[in-house]
Amino acid sequence: MSKGIVSKEEDYSAWYNELVIKADLAEYAPVKGCMVIKPYGYSIWEKMQSVLDGMFKETGHVNAYFPLFIPKSFFSKEASHVDGFAKECAVVTHYRLKNDGNGNIVVDEDAKLEEELIVRPTSETIIWNTYRGWIQSYRDLPILVNQWANVVRWEMRTRMFLRTTEFLWQEGHTAHATPEEAIAETEQMLNVYADFAENWMGVPVVRGKKSANERFAGALETYCIEALMQDGKALQAGTSHFLGQNFAKAFDVKFTNKVNVQDFVWATSWGVSTRLIGALIMAHSDDAGLVLPPKLAPIQVVVVPIYKHQEELDNITEYVKGLTKELKAKGISIKFDNRDTHRPGAKFAEYELKGVPLRVAIGSRDMTNGTVELARRDTKTKETVNQEGLADLIEAKLEEIQQNIYQKAFDFRAANTTEVDTYDEFKRLLDEKPGFLSAHWDGTPETEQLIKDETKATIRCIPLDNKQEEGVCIRTGKPSTQRVLFARAY
Amino acid sequence: MSKGIVSKEEDYSAWYNELVIKADLAEYAPVKGCMVIKPYGYSIWEKMQSVLDGMFKETGHVNAYFPLFIPKSFFSKEASHVDGFAKECAVVTHYRLKNDGNGNIVVDEDAKLEEELIVRPTSETIIWNTYRGWIQSYRDLPILVNQWANVVRWEMRTRMFLRTTEFLWQEGHTAHATPEEAIAETEQMLNVYADFAENWMGVPVVRGKKSANERFAGALETYCIEALMQDGKALQAGTSHFLGQNFAKAFDVKFTNKVNVQDFVWATSWGVSTRLIGALIMAHSDDAGLVLPPKLAPIQVVVVPIYKHQEELDNITEYVKGLTKELKAKGISIKFDNRDTHRPGAKFAEYELKGVPLRVAIGSRDMTNGTVELARRDTKTKETVNQEGLADLIEAKLEEIQQNIYQKAFDFRAANTTEVDTYDEFKRLLDEKPGFLSAHWDGTPETEQLIKDETKATIRCIPLDNKQEEGVCIRTGKPSTQRVLFARAY
Repeated sequence: MSKGIVSKEEDYSAWYNELVIKADLAEYAPVKGCMVIKPYGYSIWEKMQSVLDGMFKETGHVNAYFPLFIPKSFFSKEASHVDGFAKECAVVTHYRLKNDGNGNIVVDEDAKLEEELIVRPTSETIIWNTYRGWIQSYRDLPILVNQWANVVRWEMRTRMFLRTTEFLWQEGHTAHATPEEAIAETEQMLNVYADFAENWMGVPVVRGKKSANERFAGALETYCIEALMQDGKALQAGTSHFLGQNFAKAFDVKFTNKVNVQDFVWATSWGVSTRLIGALIMAHSDDAGLVLPPKLAPIQVVVVPIYKHQEELDNITEYVKGLTKELKAKGISIKFDNRDTHRPGAKFAEYELKGVPLRVAIGSRDMTNGTVELARRDTKTKETVNQEGLADLIEAKLEEIQQNIYQKAFDFRAANTTEVDTYDEFKRLLDEKPGFLSAHWDGTPETEQLIKDETKATIRCIPLDNKQEEGVCIRTGKPSTQRVLFARAY
Repeated sequence: MSKGIVSKEEDYSAWYNELVIKADLAEYAPVKGCMVIKPYGYSIWEKMQSVLDGMFKETGHVNAYFPLFIPKSFFSKEASHVDGFAKECAVVTHYRLKNDGNGNIVVDEDAKLEEELIVRPTSETIIWNTYRGWIQSYRDLPILVNQWANVVRWEMRTRMFLRTTEFLWQEGHTAHATPEEAIAETEQMLNVYADFAENWMGVPVVRGKKSANERFAGALETYCIEALMQDGKALQAGTSHFLGQNFAKAFDVKFTNKVNVQDFVWATSWGVSTRLIGALIMAHSDDAGLVLPPKLAPIQVVVVPIYKHQEELDNITEYVKGLTKELKAKGISIKFDNRDTHRPGAKFAEYELKGVPLRVAIGSRDMTNGTVELARRDTKTKETVNQEGLADLIEAKLEEIQQNIYQKAFDFRAANTTEVDTYDEFKRLLDEKPGFLSAHWDGTPETEQLIKDETKATIRCIPLDNKQEEGVCIRTGKPSTQRVLFARAY
């Protein structure tokens, strides 16, 4: 592993890309815009999946699996949906290759599909087509289903984790008898996402609604959580959509209610993706590498022995066995790195790069003194502590690190969220001190588009806890009743 | 839910299809040969995944994720591999749809890919292309990676779970410095699969090697586990391949060994899929529905209250709360079905159909007597037992059911495995008493093909524990040194 990455002050974008590669999280695949998620990166995703899946089940959801391929005709049934996704989808047209007789493998034109298949960019259409068979009466509702899957969107500009042609995600698709129940579900899942972002990822988020321009294609209302990265750009970390009866109407999904009247079913969908790994990296990491919140770190504690003779290593190993047992009982993951192919200094650098929250170094003098050196990744501080009670101390420290990482991100966001009342100030801040800009807007899609064209800033959301306040739109001067949150975004 | 399914004696194939639908496991999707895995079916897959994933990690493997799409040129690099898969693969040729101006959504011919992409039927090629960048020295070996993913094979004849165009699976892909180590890995994973099949699924399997005709496209040796279904047909339940240096050579993956000499890397791959759910159904179920082994049953115990008045239900509910707590502490899943929309009899039929291993029915008289009615799904027996000590009894019963299900399948297989010495007897048994037929074969692919053409029976495997025995081939009369296992298969 080559040492050092470019500084994030110098080139944030290069810093991110190098970090992803050097921390062994992922790499670009030979297929345009696709990535290989390497074992270390994937183990973060597994932790995220496991926590989120538990949260979904706690709230009454079950998992299912729907086909990867969607017939083109289905895809076209919901008008705004197809408009939103048609421009970026992978199309399967044939089902066979053949040898052309000259030793070349070519597409077999005799195996052309009658109807082209779309590789799912999201599954509303195939799922609502299926729900038609599942729902007759109010007794069949609600349907609370989630799917863990891969999806494909043919993006022109890609970036590992943040925007890739193929990505992994979960998509919840629920069906309800009333709009109130569907809206409550939409909000519940937004809160689940916010809880996960804040209490597991250590990333504070703003809960809000999207403006019409930024809504999901086919939704009546899109709720989102928005996070602020260390370069002052926003990142949408999760969305939850109230789809009204749009998909039920497109796929003719009706139910008979308690008073025997037929109505279309009400829908929601909600999703988070491997993009969260990008958010995790960008929110906390530094020039020395990843900084991972303990609750999602694949390795929480690493132990590096420092020794010259085998006998010293044997002593240390014996001690580490006991520590490992104690930590495992607490549910804390520990790695003992006793490789003799690497020096301690190289190991320190490696785990720093990989964001392991706590490092324990033990030498012979420590063994004599009954101490270890304990180093924190987040604060880069180290101290000599007693071996006695170390497991309890580690447990407490991990908790402290989790809190500290969140607090640091929270303070950063607070320092980079500004109320702005003039367009000049708005533009100046976007260049000089980017972050969330809270500003009045006249509520029209046209003005939002104008501001986007002129500044590359978009409305990230209309915060849910927004206070109503008289004001004038920063761009048009027209009256406004509330501030909305602008930012340049990933 | 309509009552009753066709009898398996009458029409095994129809019985299977009806059971899959009526037990709410899966249904056909509108895309040819694809299925929707419904929540109940998917929850069985989740249990399987969780156990297998734990076994893979125990044996030192880590998970990663590789792209869904494989460039056509990669796919062609290993000659026998492309021969094996070219005839049944989904090909992506375009990356955009458009509106043709008449309101039709059509493929945008301006968005044709320069090189077509294949939707992975298996990932050896894309993974070995990636490993080239990961491996330089023996220090980088072994690589022990697994992937949980969806794959697509454009099968002409499909059957839910057993053979579908898209299916879910795991594929392990390992890289080693020596052939011995790779073969040991291949065998280790075969044993993991056999352990899972027998001790979790309750399905006895024969461990063996495939003949050349049945080998994986690109493998030097394919190991497999073969199970016998209740209709006497065999089902390949998992495979583990020793790939030699074929893929390393195709993708130029070399390493420097300890004495500084370059060599190609040795490979294995191994996989099981949602097909295992098909095996689980076919191995144990009966005309009343699914019979699930307790270790993989999504619901292990269901409690059905029998009452007329709310007060009685309240009493029963109070008791069930305590029982639930006790069972949860033992890691046993319990469902209390207190729906007032269904009668107890309908509930009994539903859980019978869904294969819940134990049913507890509690009425008012039971509450007075301190008893419950305990019914076993596997033996269809019921008995009145004391409430006192019920949790312990349930735990013991579940263990007993797990054993019994395995034993029943084991006995069935023993009764339907026959040594055959003449071709007439071979053909007669295939029609009259199908099962595993242990017979001598001259060892040539031609004879194997001949037997397949004439009888539809294939060599399922050459059992690993085969004894050497002089004999003559049932078809050609040529000399043979061992018996191999024939059967008609799924």
